[in-house]
Amino acid sequence: MFVADRAGVARELLVACLAEIHSLAAEHRGARMPGYTHLQRAQPVSLGHHLLAWFWMLRRDVDRFDAAAAAAGAMPLGSGALAGLNWEIDRLAVAAELGFDRVVENSIDAVSNRDFALDYLSAAALCATHLSRIGAEIVLWSTSEFGFCRPAEEFSSGSSIMPQKMNPDAAELLRAKAPRVVATLTTLTGVMHGLPLAYSKDLQEDKEPLFDAAETIELCLQALGGMLPGIRFDHERMAAAAGDEMAAATDVADLLVRRGLPFREAHGVVGSLVRHALDEGIDLSAIPPDALAGFSDLLDEEYYEVLGETSWLDSKVSRGGTSAAAVATQLDLAAASLAELG
Amino acid sequence: MFVADRAGVARELLVACLAEIHSLAAEHRGARMPGYTHLQRAQPVSLGHHLLAWFWMLRRDVDRFDAAAAAAGAMPLGSGALAGLNWEIDRLAVAAELGFDRVVENSIDAVSNRDFALDYLSAAALCATHLSRIGAEIVLWSTSEFGFCRPAEEFSSGSSIMPQKMNPDAAELLRAKAPRVVATLTTLTGVMHGLPLAYSKDLQEDKEPLFDAAETIELCLQALGGMLPGIRFDHERMAAAAGDEMAAATDVADLLVRRGLPFREAHGVVGSLVRHALDEGIDLSAIPPDALAGFSDLLDEEYYEVLGETSWLDSKVSRGGTSAAAVATQLDLAAASLAELG
Amino acid sequence: MFVADRAGVARELLVACLAEIHSLAAEHRGARMPGYTHLQRAQPVSLGHHLLAWFWMLRRDVDRFDAAAAAAGAMPLGSGALAGLNWEIDRLAVAAELGFDRVVENSIDAVSNRDFALDYLSAAALCATHLSRIGAEIVLWSTSEFGFCRPAEEFSSGSSIMPQKMNPDAAELLRAKAPRVVATLTTLTGVMHGLPLAYSKDLQEDKEPLFDAAETIELCLQALGGMLPGIRFDHERMAAAAGDEMAAATDVADLLVRRGLPFREAHGVVGSLVRHALDEGIDLSAIPPDALAGFSDLLDEEYYEVLGETSWLDSKVSRGGTSAAAVATQLDLAAASLAELG
Amino acid sequence: MFVADRAGVARELLVACLAEIHSLAAEHRGARMPGYTHLQRAQPVSLGHHLLAWFWMLRRDVDRFDAAAAAAGAMPLGSGALAGLNWEIDRLAVAAELGFDRVVENSIDAVSNRDFALDYLSAAALCATHLSRIGAEIVLWSTSEFGFCRPAEEFSSGSSIMPQKMNPDAAELLRAKAPRVVATLTTLTGVMHGLPLAYSKDLQEDKEPLFDAAETIELCLQALGGMLPGIRFDHERMAAAAGDEMAAATDVADLLVRRGLPFREAHGVVGSLVRHALDEGIDLSAIPPDALAGFSDLLDEEYYEVLGETSWLDSKVSRGGTSAAAVATQLDLAAASLAELG
Repeated sequence: MFVADRAGVARELLVACLAEIHSLAAEHRGARMPGYTHLQRAQPVSLGHHLLAWFWMLRRDVDRFDAAAAAAGAMPLGSGALAGLNWEIDRLAVAAELGFDRVVENSIDAVSNRDFALDYLSAAALCATHLSRIGAEIVLWSTSEFGFCRPAEEFSSGSSIMPQKMNPDAAELLRAKAPRVVATLTTLTGVMHGLPLAYSKDLQEDKEPLFDAAETIELCLQALGGMLPGIRFDHERMAAAAGDEMAAATDVADLLVRRGLPFREAHGVVGSLVRHALDEGIDLSAIPPDALAGFSDLLDEEYYEVLGETSWLDSKVSRGGTSAAAVATQLDLAAASLAELG
Repeated sequence: MFVADRAGVARELLVACLAEIHSLAAEHRGARMPGYTHLQRAQPVSLGHHLLAWFWMLRRDVDRFDAAAAAAGAMPLGSGALAGLNWEIDRLAVAAELGFDRVVENSIDAVSNRDFALDYLSAAALCATHLSRIGAEIVLWSTSEFGFCRPAEEFSSGSSIMPQKMNPDAAELLRAKAPRVVATLTTLTGVMHGLPLAYSKDLQEDKEPLFDAAETIELCLQALGGMLPGIRFDHERMAAAAGDEMAAATDVADLLVRRGLPFREAHGVVGSLVRHALDEGIDLSAIPPDALAGFSDLLDEEYYEVLGETSWLDSKVSRGGTSAAAVATQLDLAAASLAELG
Repeated sequence: MFVADRAGVARELLVACLAEIHSLAAEHRGARMPGYTHLQRAQPVSLGHHLLAWFWMLRRDVDRFDAAAAAAGAMPLGSGALAGLNWEIDRLAVAAELGFDRVVENSIDAVSNRDFALDYLSAAALCATHLSRIGAEIVLWSTSEFGFCRPAEEFSSGSSIMPQKMNPDAAELLRAKAPRVVATLTTLTGVMHGLPLAYSKDLQEDKEPLFDAAETIELCLQALGGMLPGIRFDHERMAAAAGDEMAAATDVADLLVRRGLPFREAHGVVGSLVRHALDEGIDLSAIPPDALAGFSDLLDEEYYEVLGETSWLDSKVSRGGTSAAAVATQLDLAAASLAELG
Repeated sequence: MFVADRAGVARELLVACLAEIHSLAAEHRGARMPGYTHLQRAQPVSLGHHLLAWFWMLRRDVDRFDAAAAAAGAMPLGSGALAGLNWEIDRLAVAAELGFDRVVENSIDAVSNRDFALDYLSAAALCATHLSRIGAEIVLWSTSEFGFCRPAEEFSSGSSIMPQKMNPDAAELLRAKAPRVVATLTTLTGVMHGLPLAYSKDLQEDKEPLFDAAETIELCLQALGGMLPGIRFDHERMAAAAGDEMAAATDVADLLVRRGLPFREAHGVVGSLVRHALDEGIDLSAIPPDALAGFSDLLDEEYYEVLGETSWLDSKVSRGGTSAAAVATQLDLAAASLAELG
């Protein structure tokens, strides 16, 4: 029952986080920021789009906690010491009364099994790992160097001496707690390892990992849910970081491919353009029209359109992409998914 | 796709194991053995009943692999480097063609996420842990001291010099491999820990844990499925071990409770009977009728019936218990569950 | 300082356990029991010899805790927030006063490093794993089936109803706690994973794993130290289990090898002898002298000597072996090693 | 022998890394960069000083591998199947010949023990965790946002299309591989958990974790050693990031404390100064002398000296601090430590 209850609590906290993330994503759908690969700026994306990546990540955790709660719905009671009871008893009726939806069908299994705990711990371990990624991003974005956001004061700590400094406490907590939650899972798989049936005292070692994981994951979810509304994003810094024209280089290649150049050759042309711009110390868009032909016959006015700042995001029109229309669709899908969760 | 495929393979192997276990359980439903708590003989149970505890344990693993396969049904393709594609594409149609049932709805999530791998690894880790318990039991039962079973030769190793010795190789393998599979899960949760979105080279570290877990769990399931049909159980040794009258002590207490004695007092009476028998060096059933009254007025002829060897098992009549009727019901439920799995 | 102190506590408890084990080993040096491979009886050994295997296992743990204490001897104090202090201070003198033997030579390292904790946790993880093996053996030996020992009452739990049943609580605890201690280590390596220097709030996550590991390992060592003096070994049961003549089969092969038969052929001859004995349902020593020649010309009277029960152990004369003389030497070495520990 | 050999290989690779780090630290001792707490700029430090923090971190790993090699110096050979050999043999002589420095003194321990592997795996796990911190820092420093360094081309990957982009492959590898190495340790502690003595097939599961850990840690150390010489640090970007006057706020507080103001009050005064500067949008040094008295009578000309850029580092004069003199001393200590390693 503990598992079903606490899986329910985690679910509620997750749904609250999802609602906050959705609301933030809607609010910041129009803000541009760099999308990163290898922590290098790769392509500009909408901040709303990025936040929705968090949404779907945590959305899957809801399913895991739901599955853990469902798996914990089998009542072990009525199994005696291990062999069953000496009298007939309507275990199904007892189960229904106690809020279980079925019974464990084997009395030995009933006293030997800790899958209900393991399922919860697996869900918690993955959820905590997800939260650690969000926490790490907020820590990173809060640095002076990135300067993308600033956590709310009540989820940070400053110092009497450096009031300008704001340590992202809650975000660090999200990052720091995941290994502990994963360790509760490995503790219990370790305890179960090679343990003969039916009951051994070792099985009591399910309690502390379970309590610890529940407390920790709930603390983390509360920290995230509490922290999100107060985060202040610096759209200007983000847009400046996203404004590096080099990030549009792939779009120029796409233009060439659309015009019939093989993929590999298109990449070669763009590589030459980029090197030229770097050598000259100019932007890609500052290469004059008459010089373009020296790189490829297929380049014309559209080259400059592609490099136009506003066009980068809007060019990503595929389902799930970062164009305004695709993000709008995605926000709707996320809202519908949230609504389903009740 | 790898995950869905290999989850399917694990499922198939699990179903084969379940069928073998069911068949063994049906065959040995009438054999008595001791049920253990703390590895001390506690109450006699049917061997079939015990084997069915293995059945339900592995039955839950099927659900986990199914959930992993379902979770892996979202196609990430069509997400570009991270921001989506520059052209419209019917991702749903592509997904359908490739055997996915939906698409990842966010291009950043699509390149950052490794949940499909983590879900598989969680399922594999729990399954391997279950198998280690079965393996440990077979190792134990194969000792000269227990002597409950003897693994088939092709799943054992002997020695040219000691042909009477038969090492339970396959069972040891089941016990030994679980930590490795759990470690593949902690490897990947460790890699994901604190990793900013979207793509980093670190994410390539999902491959080897995944391949290693799949190979290992499949090897273990094949070992179990292969080993089960050839195990020879020694009903005589098991029954002798189960025949310790002391194991019926709880049944005597139950008799007293049924007759109105409070639980605590009933236990006290039985404790006195057991101590008396131990002091006299006699069986409980050898305490003469006229001596019984000295322990409790509520004891009469039924005392001897309760202690009759055949009555121990059959007294456990509750659903999921070890009485012949309850085990028969359970075999039917297990068969139905197996039939559902197709 | 916490680490040095608690490593010292663990050391003291270990030394107490070692002393108990040594004393038990000396007491039971003459008792025979089966040595196991694959949990199958392989060769008879002296119980004292087996207990000394525990001794050396835990003896190595003393070195690990000592190394952890030594590694924790560098004082981090005097490093300021991370860059050092604005005034000169004799850190070496402060260190000496506080009981450190040196200082951390880099202020950034001083605030970033948690190796002192990791070293302690590594030592604790390995020690706990060793204890789990000892615990598992005691659980096994306490079964009705093995019947080799019976834990003292104060480290067991019985039941009011089954006074004859004695659950080996303390031994189960030793087995059950190891995964938890290992998990404290993986928690902290997980926290440190990928954490940029110098200080982050994440580093506060060293406290709870450290406290938990210390408490748990100390509890386990106290349990072992407390349990050992009260264990009652059943020499008769052990000797009976060790008395299986088949265990001397390798000695017969050794005899043949000594007489010039190649190893492989010797094994073949002994395999034939064993099969013959099994087929006839007789002991190896019951094969009559005139039948021996049918197996090998090299077999004579010494064949029966080799099979004489008392000769099995005493034949293992190599250093570290189970012969009385070798065990006596080993007891001396262990006593000397213990004396060194102070 | 494998362990001693590979611990030696790891040691050699570590020593090579240490030499490179020392050389880099000497080269960059004069470069300023921000020191971070909570990934927020806290106090400026010398880049050489920061690199020396890496030095000491890895220096400790040498000791661990040395300890693992030493622990592996006991020869198990000559223990027979588990009980010893039937003939006398000078095991010490054999050990000496084979390169061991002593023998395992108990034949049962000799076949049951895997501590030599566990010691190596512990050393490797901690070393890999250290490397992951270095890797994470290089990834961070290589971002456009930090811009502190640029990895050499041969340890990075670019793209034909974005020649300006340089993914820090080798650094990502360092970060990504640590969980895998930690997992080899938990695999083997898991295998050993609760395993009765003496030999079981489970013990064969030491091979793959050991090989995998050795290969992985050697790969990582080679990657670091190879990558270090080619890293180009951008002193200008670093100095600019370090030049934030706010970082000297603690030094102003130290000045006040030196002049007799209690610590707490000094912090209050500086907090007021910082808030005033922030409100006015000016630097701390731009607060005019006559305004200083409004904050504290104890502030005079030295206030401006303390805020002078060059004075920040040089004020950290304590042993292990970041002043030029302290770093010079530290470089000497590190060189001496390196020389000792041979």
